[in-house]
Amino acid sequence: MGRKLRCGMIGGGPGAFIGGVHRAAISLNNEAELVAGCFSNNEEKIIQAGAELGIDKDRNYWTFEEMAKKEGARKDKIDWVDIVTPNCFHYPAAKLFLEQGINVVCEKPLCFTVDEGQELKRIAMENNCLFCVTYTYTGHVMAREARELVKNGSIGDIRMVIAEYPQDWLLDSLEIISENNQPWRANPKFSGRGACVADLGTHIENWVSYVTGLKLDSLCCNLDTFGSGGVLDNNVEVLVKFKGGATGMYWTSQVAIGFDNALKVRIFGTDGTIEFVQEENNYLKVSMRNQPPQIYSRGCDYLTDKAKEYVRVPSGHPEGLIEAFANIYKDFCRALIDKIDGQQINEENYGYPTIDMGIDGVAFVNKCVDSSEAGAIWIKM
Amino acid sequence: MGRKLRCGMIGGGPGAFIGGVHRAAISLNNEAELVAGCFSNNEEKIIQAGAELGIDKDRNYWTFEEMAKKEGARKDKIDWVDIVTPNCFHYPAAKLFLEQGINVVCEKPLCFTVDEGQELKRIAMENNCLFCVTYTYTGHVMAREARELVKNGSIGDIRMVIAEYPQDWLLDSLEIISENNQPWRANPKFSGRGACVADLGTHIENWVSYVTGLKLDSLCCNLDTFGSGGVLDNNVEVLVKFKGGATGMYWTSQVAIGFDNALKVRIFGTDGTIEFVQEENNYLKVSMRNQPPQIYSRGCDYLTDKAKEYVRVPSGHPEGLIEAFANIYKDFCRALIDKIDGQQINEENYGYPTIDMGIDGVAFVNKCVDSSEAGAIWIKM
Amino acid sequence: MGRKLRCGMIGGGPGAFIGGVHRAAISLNNEAELVAGCFSNNEEKIIQAGAELGIDKDRNYWTFEEMAKKEGARKDKIDWVDIVTPNCFHYPAAKLFLEQGINVVCEKPLCFTVDEGQELKRIAMENNCLFCVTYTYTGHVMAREARELVKNGSIGDIRMVIAEYPQDWLLDSLEIISENNQPWRANPKFSGRGACVADLGTHIENWVSYVTGLKLDSLCCNLDTFGSGGVLDNNVEVLVKFKGGATGMYWTSQVAIGFDNALKVRIFGTDGTIEFVQEENNYLKVSMRNQPPQIYSRGCDYLTDKAKEYVRVPSGHPEGLIEAFANIYKDFCRALIDKIDGQQINEENYGYPTIDMGIDGVAFVNKCVDSSEAGAIWIKM
Amino acid sequence: MGRKLRCGMIGGGPGAFIGGVHRAAISLNNEAELVAGCFSNNEEKIIQAGAELGIDKDRNYWTFEEMAKKEGARKDKIDWVDIVTPNCFHYPAAKLFLEQGINVVCEKPLCFTVDEGQELKRIAMENNCLFCVTYTYTGHVMAREARELVKNGSIGDIRMVIAEYPQDWLLDSLEIISENNQPWRANPKFSGRGACVADLGTHIENWVSYVTGLKLDSLCCNLDTFGSGGVLDNNVEVLVKFKGGATGMYWTSQVAIGFDNALKVRIFGTDGTIEFVQEENNYLKVSMRNQPPQIYSRGCDYLTDKAKEYVRVPSGHPEGLIEAFANIYKDFCRALIDKIDGQQINEENYGYPTIDMGIDGVAFVNKCVDSSEAGAIWIKM
Repeated sequence: MGRKLRCGMIGGGPGAFIGGVHRAAISLNNEAELVAGCFSNNEEKIIQAGAELGIDKDRNYWTFEEMAKKEGARKDKIDWVDIVTPNCFHYPAAKLFLEQGINVVCEKPLCFTVDEGQELKRIAMENNCLFCVTYTYTGHVMAREARELVKNGSIGDIRMVIAEYPQDWLLDSLEIISENNQPWRANPKFSGRGACVADLGTHIENWVSYVTGLKLDSLCCNLDTFGSGGVLDNNVEVLVKFKGGATGMYWTSQVAIGFDNALKVRIFGTDGTIEFVQEENNYLKVSMRNQPPQIYSRGCDYLTDKAKEYVRVPSGHPEGLIEAFANIYKDFCRALIDKIDGQQINEENYGYPTIDMGIDGVAFVNKCVDSSEAGAIWIKM
Repeated sequence: MGRKLRCGMIGGGPGAFIGGVHRAAISLNNEAELVAGCFSNNEEKIIQAGAELGIDKDRNYWTFEEMAKKEGARKDKIDWVDIVTPNCFHYPAAKLFLEQGINVVCEKPLCFTVDEGQELKRIAMENNCLFCVTYTYTGHVMAREARELVKNGSIGDIRMVIAEYPQDWLLDSLEIISENNQPWRANPKFSGRGACVADLGTHIENWVSYVTGLKLDSLCCNLDTFGSGGVLDNNVEVLVKFKGGATGMYWTSQVAIGFDNALKVRIFGTDGTIEFVQEENNYLKVSMRNQPPQIYSRGCDYLTDKAKEYVRVPSGHPEGLIEAFANIYKDFCRALIDKIDGQQINEENYGYPTIDMGIDGVAFVNKCVDSSEAGAIWIKM
Repeated sequence: MGRKLRCGMIGGGPGAFIGGVHRAAISLNNEAELVAGCFSNNEEKIIQAGAELGIDKDRNYWTFEEMAKKEGARKDKIDWVDIVTPNCFHYPAAKLFLEQGINVVCEKPLCFTVDEGQELKRIAMENNCLFCVTYTYTGHVMAREARELVKNGSIGDIRMVIAEYPQDWLLDSLEIISENNQPWRANPKFSGRGACVADLGTHIENWVSYVTGLKLDSLCCNLDTFGSGGVLDNNVEVLVKFKGGATGMYWTSQVAIGFDNALKVRIFGTDGTIEFVQEENNYLKVSMRNQPPQIYSRGCDYLTDKAKEYVRVPSGHPEGLIEAFANIYKDFCRALIDKIDGQQINEENYGYPTIDMGIDGVAFVNKCVDSSEAGAIWIKM
Repeated sequence: MGRKLRCGMIGGGPGAFIGGVHRAAISLNNEAELVAGCFSNNEEKIIQAGAELGIDKDRNYWTFEEMAKKEGARKDKIDWVDIVTPNCFHYPAAKLFLEQGINVVCEKPLCFTVDEGQELKRIAMENNCLFCVTYTYTGHVMAREARELVKNGSIGDIRMVIAEYPQDWLLDSLEIISENNQPWRANPKFSGRGACVADLGTHIENWVSYVTGLKLDSLCCNLDTFGSGGVLDNNVEVLVKFKGGATGMYWTSQVAIGFDNALKVRIFGTDGTIEFVQEENNYLKVSMRNQPPQIYSRGCDYLTDKAKEYVRVPSGHPEGLIEAFANIYKDFCRALIDKIDGQQINEENYGYPTIDMGIDGVAFVNKCVDSSEAGAIWIKM
């Protein structure tokens, strides 16, 4: 590669939270530049975004159909597109770009149905496209450390997984719902069948699966809709059983006063326990049987080699959300460069969450809603 | 009252953990003295216990049948008996003493079946006996503070309760089970139908009920038996629904490496959240809507008057397990003195956990086992 | 010993905080009983105390001169006296009892001057009396663990000791000082030349010395008196040098808003670091060079044998202030019994803080005040 | 401004930790681009850096003298230069660029002597140049919140400041010192008279001054050099007095096993206390008199408006080191744009640390060394 990679973006215009984070992560790696986009469905915002982000006018598109088509036809077309729209546009947008042979990075949840997900996977394979789903929290260095510790047998066989993800930052907006100010996350048209279970639940499902390699066998889910006006869930309680005999509990909530963004996962094995807390992502608590619990610190020499690949600054100098995204992009760009260099790619080997994980997330959301609607009964995956 | 109260003890001889704690708690209050007991079913231990504890020989009994009968006949009979045996003896022992008109303080779980519990309650009422079940963790000052904050509406209407109680101190003994060294907690003959769910689960069930006043409507429980040899549960995962619409999750485990005795309850209301962690029992985390979380400290002036009644030492000077027990005994002795003084007693008003709470605990254990045995289905309470 | 030990108490009547804690600690051990006392200089309180504590009328004394004399003359005289008065009475009271051959347990600071301390030591030796100074926080199990880890070389040679002890519970009373409500701790007549440095500073000085065995070489101290009206220090900042080359900083304050009773000591060695926080006394943070920090938990098997001797309840079941006192009494009573049994006693071997440590504390207070009065200059010990 | 700002960099080539962080911070803001540099004194590294960073060959300079001269002569000259070299080059490099009228951003410590600092200030004023010193930890959102809370009187008048900054990541390299592998930080030729006091101590001095506005009146400092071979300090203990009566203690160490990068500052006022811990930079502990301590979380609505200006992602989504740098650059670029737009600039108003703070830091280092060399005596600032 003698050049920087080129990327485009769908959604994520001025004022959007997550689009800015994706751009910051990309710029942190300094491997790629944003050269095209369709940042909004609002004219004014499109123009503003293009100007702010330094996008050439002819690559600042008004629809993503137009963008996919025109970019697909360029010689210097984008190497990948970032899809950071509300959930409902993930599937149609991803499809258009894949059909143009453009690699895709897509926010979670991947789409609304497993069928959609399978179709995207098929199209991606047919067009030899890479596909990354940005489950952010797998990007943290200590998530990678946790994954390695499980892989190398440090904690033995897994018995239970207890995970939670409470938030309260959407509390007011979720409770004062009207036509005008309802957040898209609480609107089934934009969000799909699940709200909290899709927005937060999929993070738990994926993080656990990413780190442990365990496959869900069945689940029993209760969804609550607290407060006035909403129709979608804002509190999610799930019992899970994994193939192989491990069990677990997942809880996530958007109405948990006092909690900011508190993803926490504990993995209990026959020989030890791993505890990851997203808000303290620079640390990992590791407890070995009959030993005092230890606090691993990102950046220290005793980490696994795999985790150390992602360390950017010395221990005690905090990394955060943007670095987590940047690590996923680092993985993805590595795969992309290998592909451009003509190598055969197995996406599993690069560390970023794949389309299969995206499909698993969509299955999880739907099975949770199915279970809850049927009275919180057990459902096979 | 011109005298110290007199108590007796069933079980809790040399080497027993919980008997010593009960005695320490009683001596801390300095309101009562231990004057009789049947501390073991082993001759040597009985003699040793009597000597160590300064029990008169004629009140150091060889069977609890003998003790109940002889104490019942004395003029200076014990004011109450403490039952701190393995679970299987709670019911028969309590019955014998109640029939002699002797008040009872009994360890949890109260007994094996709800019918047994109801019978004990009937006998207690017929004999005008007080009955306290020592759910330890309701005795902490900050448990009382939490209860008052819920009662006075500080956190609004309760939406969710997320509670857990992981341990690992029995891990080795639970996994190396043989005829000889199997802990009684894991033996159905001594423990009943549930092990972890009875030993730890009942603490969660009671603490939540005690602090919130919520009544369970139904539950869905998965019990696991990890490791070799045991037949009873050592890991418990429960979805619960409360009357009135609140929901919750309870998790407790005896095979959770890295956790000592980590009872933690979070109560989420419409206006705020309360978080209690037993191992940090001198503090309570209180988060009010749209305000920074606060750390309440036991002993400070801003606590409720009710909680302040139980403060023994200034803030920052840690109280612990023994003080929690002592607070329950303080409540119980207050009721006892009022009763001796001829007052009409409503046990609910004194603060200690009542026999009704004991019965609720037994119901909880049985419903959990029923649910799990039926495939972790929902069961009405 | 075929009997319980007998103790008496000077000070500590109704309403006094620390007297009650001493009594609770003694009763927790169940090795001794309180049989005599002079609990106050106020008639009414004396009578009330005697009644509450079940002291025989003829042993409920009106002055400690009378008590020393009469107890000294009894055949069943007290085995030791507890001195828990304001500081100014420690020296005269201790002297009287030692002269009667009665062993002494005395609150810190031992007395006002090193000369007084040396005199007490001489009298104690002449009368073959044991002498314990109740530096509370040396009694915690994890203080004992820390001491053993230093002794067995786990953290190598000590380089620095950073210690602090901020409080705020006396803040209001220290700032609203008048003739009537001034706390005795802030009155030089009762407290001596130092207030905060005597009340809290001596705890730091002793804890460090007890755990590390290091001897102070010199110090440089700044004392502040913040707020209106007081003449004694309420904030203390000290640089210290130890014999052998280690250095350190001590800070203690009674006007540190937001801190309850936050004694915290960190000991840095060439191979590792130990951190003890009194409010979390059931844990010890141990960091070995190039290893992740570990959280030791009181009660676990990996502790040193010495520390495990003092464990009362399993890990995760919190012990607190009273247990710390009780451990010191346990040590003292062990020595006492050995002495009664006719053994030659070396008090250093029993674990309780000795009169030498009491004298070191008095020296520390005086050197701090000397240094501060001279402009915070360095002073040799 | 119709264009991005242009910056150059001195030092910070491949492998240098802090240069990469500066570049990441600049790219995060997306307001400026790196167009020139003199990244090393090693030919190979210069070429590598230029290629990696996409610097035009004619702006990838071999000496900073050349760079200052040639950039000064360009029409499209850099708007500012970043100086991220070892300490010894700060002064000569800054001087050269200021003389060319180029604004400067310089790492701390600013230079070796106060005279040098004053000279730089004079030259900056003569040439109408802005000058920012990158005291990183003032850039955290919660540092800004702390500053506002002090300014608006929330915690009353300041009484004490207790600050510390222990590290251990350089421990091994500091202890195995030879000609070849001695870190420049421990070499007086590169680092100046102080090592730990310059590298870490200046952060404490500045953070306290930045947040509180307090001016140091005098200090008493002990410097230690633990381990073999080094000549400069690696452990620093300071008593400080502020103008106006407040006092404090600063401790910083590079040999504190178990601590990564643990800057912690506590500011005690008459009405409340603020506690900032750099490794938990997304939170601020605020304790008001007689109220339970509160945990402020970056991103929440209750923060001051000033702090909220710097929030990049919602609460609970961690920001870290790079964002802190980026906030300082954001301030600096705002001033730069105002200057380019022809406004009169008062650098104090923009929030970034000014050259006066840089000079204060140099004074602090020299006074600490002076004090320690004279036997840790008190020295006036």
